[in-house]
Amino acid sequence: MPQPDHVMALPLPEKPELDPDMQALFDKCVEKLGFVPNVLQAYSLRPKKLRNFAVVYNELMLGESGLSKLEREMIAVVVSSANHCYYCLVAHGQAVRKLSGDPELGEMLVANYRVAPLEPRRRAMLDFAWKLTKEPMSVGEPDREALRAVGFSAEDIFDIADTVGFYNMSNRLATAVDMIPNREYHSQDR
Amino acid sequence: MPQPDHVMALPLPEKPELDPDMQALFDKCVEKLGFVPNVLQAYSLRPKKLRNFAVVYNELMLGESGLSKLEREMIAVVVSSANHCYYCLVAHGQAVRKLSGDPELGEMLVANYRVAPLEPRRRAMLDFAWKLTKEPMSVGEPDREALRAVGFSAEDIFDIADTVGFYNMSNRLATAVDMIPNREYHSQDR
Amino acid sequence: MPQPDHVMALPLPEKPELDPDMQALFDKCVEKLGFVPNVLQAYSLRPKKLRNFAVVYNELMLGESGLSKLEREMIAVVVSSANHCYYCLVAHGQAVRKLSGDPELGEMLVANYRVAPLEPRRRAMLDFAWKLTKEPMSVGEPDREALRAVGFSAEDIFDIADTVGFYNMSNRLATAVDMIPNREYHSQDR
Amino acid sequence: MPQPDHVMALPLPEKPELDPDMQALFDKCVEKLGFVPNVLQAYSLRPKKLRNFAVVYNELMLGESGLSKLEREMIAVVVSSANHCYYCLVAHGQAVRKLSGDPELGEMLVANYRVAPLEPRRRAMLDFAWKLTKEPMSVGEPDREALRAVGFSAEDIFDIADTVGFYNMSNRLATAVDMIPNREYHSQDR
Amino acid sequence: MPQPDHVMALPLPEKPELDPDMQALFDKCVEKLGFVPNVLQAYSLRPKKLRNFAVVYNELMLGESGLSKLEREMIAVVVSSANHCYYCLVAHGQAVRKLSGDPELGEMLVANYRVAPLEPRRRAMLDFAWKLTKEPMSVGEPDREALRAVGFSAEDIFDIADTVGFYNMSNRLATAVDMIPNREYHSQDR
Amino acid sequence: MPQPDHVMALPLPEKPELDPDMQALFDKCVEKLGFVPNVLQAYSLRPKKLRNFAVVYNELMLGESGLSKLEREMIAVVVSSANHCYYCLVAHGQAVRKLSGDPELGEMLVANYRVAPLEPRRRAMLDFAWKLTKEPMSVGEPDREALRAVGFSAEDIFDIADTVGFYNMSNRLATAVDMIPNREYHSQDR
Repeated sequence: MPQPDHVMALPLPEKPELDPDMQALFDKCVEKLGFVPNVLQAYSLRPKKLRNFAVVYNELMLGESGLSKLEREMIAVVVSSANHCYYCLVAHGQAVRKLSGDPELGEMLVANYRVAPLEPRRRAMLDFAWKLTKEPMSVGEPDREALRAVGFSAEDIFDIADTVGFYNMSNRLATAVDMIPNREYHSQDR
Repeated sequence: MPQPDHVMALPLPEKPELDPDMQALFDKCVEKLGFVPNVLQAYSLRPKKLRNFAVVYNELMLGESGLSKLEREMIAVVVSSANHCYYCLVAHGQAVRKLSGDPELGEMLVANYRVAPLEPRRRAMLDFAWKLTKEPMSVGEPDREALRAVGFSAEDIFDIADTVGFYNMSNRLATAVDMIPNREYHSQDR
Repeated sequence: MPQPDHVMALPLPEKPELDPDMQALFDKCVEKLGFVPNVLQAYSLRPKKLRNFAVVYNELMLGESGLSKLEREMIAVVVSSANHCYYCLVAHGQAVRKLSGDPELGEMLVANYRVAPLEPRRRAMLDFAWKLTKEPMSVGEPDREALRAVGFSAEDIFDIADTVGFYNMSNRLATAVDMIPNREYHSQDR
Repeated sequence: MPQPDHVMALPLPEKPELDPDMQALFDKCVEKLGFVPNVLQAYSLRPKKLRNFAVVYNELMLGESGLSKLEREMIAVVVSSANHCYYCLVAHGQAVRKLSGDPELGEMLVANYRVAPLEPRRRAMLDFAWKLTKEPMSVGEPDREALRAVGFSAEDIFDIADTVGFYNMSNRLATAVDMIPNREYHSQDR
Repeated sequence: MPQPDHVMALPLPEKPELDPDMQALFDKCVEKLGFVPNVLQAYSLRPKKLRNFAVVYNELMLGESGLSKLEREMIAVVVSSANHCYYCLVAHGQAVRKLSGDPELGEMLVANYRVAPLEPRRRAMLDFAWKLTKEPMSVGEPDREALRAVGFSAEDIFDIADTVGFYNMSNRLATAVDMIPNREYHSQDR
Repeated sequence: MPQPDHVMALPLPEKPELDPDMQALFDKCVEKLGFVPNVLQAYSLRPKKLRNFAVVYNELMLGESGLSKLEREMIAVVVSSANHCYYCLVAHGQAVRKLSGDPELGEMLVANYRVAPLEPRRRAMLDFAWKLTKEPMSVGEPDREALRAVGFSAEDIFDIADTVGFYNMSNRLATAVDMIPNREYHSQDR
């Protein structure tokens, strides 16, 4: 059964004209990861959006925040589980395995975060992420209060909401254009 | 019955320390709109994200694209209708009224885009936006084909998906922190 | 983008044969509102049902009840928001704006009643209305008890249920035959 | 396991003050059916609404229409199946058994109308009823066209929509106040 | 309106080759019930699965358990109500009528178990059955705790889950192949 | 972050009294797999059901059928994806990786089978499995016809429905008692 042979279902420019800083980003990916993530290649169809995506992503996932990098990746996986997004489950599932050193945790979050033996802070964070993804119109003060009760600050709540929002965006873009993740993720950190 | 007295449910910095370019953006909003949109004020809780939001938003809604500005606003309203996002329905409903010169069109998209007498291109675009919002995992090649059939290019399809994604993000952030839109929108372009 | 040019998608009698009391009702509408609401014109396809609709409507929305007229209109808008009914959101959204003197309240109920700063009585009433609309089979004694707890009597609970029911009826009829509201509503009480 | 001992969960007036025409209606029920349907007893809490309900009901279910009485009862049962309304399934399930002379048809419509071996006209009618009940916002011109294709006139479509609407109303009222059907229905026409 | 004339929508073997023990089972059904349940006839298309089904069914519904036979039948009906399975609602609705001696209880569980005046043990059992059927991924420790609180043992909880699971299986098989129940059930125990 | 330390959330017998044939089954598992699957250990709480489960499972997944063993495992994973069942996604995801020799196929089916580049037969089979899992009451003749159109026989359709049913059963049992899969699955066949 052959694998999908595309980066995404939309045609990519044969020779993407990348600005120097974007070319540098691609080079850095190859150096550090061994490959350019397909999401970046897909964005090369719309070069201005590529740069914006990279900037937003770096601040969201790597910038200063009361949420650890692992926690941000956990949100990414749980949102993607709710939305059944193949690209994001593969790429961020691998990140959870790597950052946690716990391959099973990654699989639990892919399947159903409720089975994971989480401390209350993280369970509350993921309950919020699931609800905000599945029925955003029902989220209100009691949900914010549940986050405060386990110690999240106002900035943390903003960051949780922003991260949930971001993956609801990227899940939909990835599914809409049928982005396929690089194969390297599958075998890493198992 | 008093109105909500907040920009959002999370506390804002008393004196937000805005970088000069962000201060310039706020000043420009006051000059052009008469007010700083509350979404920007809300983001001042996380200044680095404020700049990124502004940059992404400008490219998405005002940058070069095969989608007209009105069409992008139409997507914003239809996604926000599916997600019942008050902030975005008010702010982008006004934009549709203004850009279309048709106040009823704005109201139709807020309530149920299916009642609007749309040309096939726009109906297909909004059908795609609704489905990608409500059941992203079900979107596939037949849905992309329906967009191509009414003339959308690969870049256009990318931009439609990106716009649908963006408002699925901003709807969730706005609802999660209870952002309230500026009152000025309500009476404009009726 | 042209507006829908019809009262409803079904053909209307060219010269509706209205009984004298119905003709009087139409005349009174023109005198008081400046127009005959399209819902009444649509019902002229089935004249006997027109009279019944008018009688039921008057008792429901204007008759003696423990619910204020504004509260009944609030229920109408929240049910119509859950059902995405364009006709009823436009007509009853205007009624909420007028009766409350608060245009923003009307918009909040159209989009998502949960963002409105409501007193507990009204919040409980609208929570009941939303649940009874979206998942009627789940409503039970705890839901009735929540209404009693904020002071509603047995008659009030009956009237709330009856009003929720009525708009679940009229939303479906209006959508099924594609009733379009009179344009006059859009600009009133903004 | 004792049965519910109430007409509805709200208290009824000890001695309902019925106007003479309503008393006559109750008397006629006892004469013809052997009992007063509990829905009428429940409405005696709000006597003005009782009369309106009776008038609307008679026109809807017994008045002149292109839909046969059996067809109207079939819609009642299918809507009530979608909404899991005990009262209406019992009362109108009996009516389908009686009018069709086919007890199994009644049971099929209670459980899942899709298993019934229906002629195309009735299958189209019930498909419309189910969709308009479960996702009213999605009903549009193709759905009306499907009704026209099997021979329904404009008046018939109006009546189908009205009947679907009516039971979406009465299902919600009956569930909200926990109306229990008279026991007599259960054993009739089996 | 003719009834379905089939055992199921898939063709049955003209002369099913039943092993002797299966033939004995069929003979025993005729002797005790007056007919061979159509579910068994349907399974004769796949004789090895027929035997397994019979064995599992007997242990599940008739074997030793902390759940009474009536309770197991109640679960069968409530799961089938959630899934709108005609075959199982007819066959197990009859079983509830017979075992409880209460025809109305059977009808309540078919329509909406929440209207039945149940003791807390049975209400908790059926709440668990409904939730596990409709949103299995949301079931967790609080749901198990609610069962323990009304006295169910670990073995009982296993049996409840197993029974809910079994009817989620058989509902899907019956609907997928359009199994029609024997007519005898309809008039029994009314 | 510690892993769950249990086979399931219900207490297991300290020394399960296994009948000789069941003990032989457990021994054979250790010999062939290196471990006893936790689902079997969980069933040892109810020894009679253990034997039945093993017999049904063997016929379903290993018996003669027009469906290949891989196809049966593919159905298992897709049903479990719809139901977010951790145990079954882990155990049967590994089986798909092993039987197909294609680790990515396993991950695609876990996340969203619609992204997998499947031949029409398998895509039709999995579309049927998804629909029968998520909305069983909507499955009918057109769905069976879609299976016949890609070459499935009556027996095959029965087996597809039976397999979909079985995992709708086991997903619910596994989630209801919080079964945790053996760790060995995670790293196999990556």
